[in-house]
Amino acid sequence: MKIAVLGTGMTGIAIASKLLEKGHEVRMGSRSATNDAAVKWAAAAGAKAGHGTFADAAAFGEMVFNCTSGGASLEALRAAGAQHLSNKVLVDVANPLDFSKGMPPSLSVSNTDSLGEQIQRNFPEAKVVKTLNTLNCYLMVDPASLPGEHSIFISGNDAAAKAAVLEVLTRDFGWKPGSVIDLGDISTARGTESLLPVWVRLWGALGHPNFNFHVVVGSPPSPKA
Amino acid sequence: MKIAVLGTGMTGIAIASKLLEKGHEVRMGSRSATNDAAVKWAAAAGAKAGHGTFADAAAFGEMVFNCTSGGASLEALRAAGAQHLSNKVLVDVANPLDFSKGMPPSLSVSNTDSLGEQIQRNFPEAKVVKTLNTLNCYLMVDPASLPGEHSIFISGNDAAAKAAVLEVLTRDFGWKPGSVIDLGDISTARGTESLLPVWVRLWGALGHPNFNFHVVVGSPPSPKA
Repeated sequence: MKIAVLGTGMTGIAIASKLLEKGHEVRMGSRSATNDAAVKWAAAAGAKAGHGTFADAAAFGEMVFNCTSGGASLEALRAAGAQHLSNKVLVDVANPLDFSKGMPPSLSVSNTDSLGEQIQRNFPEAKVVKTLNTLNCYLMVDPASLPGEHSIFISGNDAAAKAAVLEVLTRDFGWKPGSVIDLGDISTARGTESLLPVWVRLWGALGHPNFNFHVVVGSPPSPKA
Repeated sequence: MKIAVLGTGMTGIAIASKLLEKGHEVRMGSRSATNDAAVKWAAAAGAKAGHGTFADAAAFGEMVFNCTSGGASLEALRAAGAQHLSNKVLVDVANPLDFSKGMPPSLSVSNTDSLGEQIQRNFPEAKVVKTLNTLNCYLMVDPASLPGEHSIFISGNDAAAKAAVLEVLTRDFGWKPGSVIDLGDISTARGTESLLPVWVRLWGALGHPNFNFHVVVGSPPSPKA
């Protein structure tokens, strides 16, 4: 598949590299067509790798990953162009982290709204699927590197789009289908983005980001007498 | 130990009953000295159980559990009286759930503040320890009923207070010491209270509340070449 990866930070590079390794054609997009990280990545990555502006990449991709920083995502997607996102699966991996109030970061949108919903509202023709925003980027594309069962979440309004993303997550990234929890429509991104405030504090307490949440599910409780 | 449990909902009853079962003297506190649930509980629970107003219970307890609903916690603690909370460990189990904006609930305080911090600020002489607010009340006091490893968190400014709470959690409630993650000071309650937005959506997706988060921790990542 032709896939666009918007954003050239660690998350974008990790996702683009894994997709390429799995045989996809990948174009990385950034604000400038000559972004150093994207140029370097594409030069090293071979014939199926390319780079360009956000609009170049989005026009190329049949599926688009938003790996830009959350505070810049709406602007990046506007630069990508609504016409290049229309009717496409837009996988939103970003978190609306706000570093302006000190460390650890807070969220610039939370509680009664989410970045995932903002993106869906601003790009109503795109099929936004929020996922992978709750763990370190190396674990996103290599879940088996963390021993034991652990979970990711998926949120979105379009069932077919979620199924397409689930296929990438399982076939390409190595997630077991049972580890991917479908929380419901895109408003459930409020839930997964709200994991960030505890995630950043766990990073602080543990001293490193090599961890993930596992949702341990028991049997439904029997009615109390 | 003499323990006060403020709040006579499901969480208060679950915690008070478990503490009693483990040999503590427990007084439940509520707005009125004749609260039906507290009267009924104390009558059935035997000689070591009592009930009264928030102030009666707080005056009695050497340790105080706040199991009131989050939106009413500050008022309940004011009714309990700062003088009855001073120098005591105040275990805050509440979540600031806001049901006024529809279901699932949002939070009335979040992101850059938390109920745990509000309580600590309003009762500076109390030693506030936030814990157990991230799972169903039956699991709080019976973690082994959910098979497998799973986690709870602890937040507070006073190390001795956290140690005292850890002892109750492990000795009385059955938590393994390794399952209790100390996130740091009371500001880290922002993290655990932020688990509620995903918790309520997991309840929706799974259809029942018999689940918990396990923080799966790997080795610190080796530096990248």
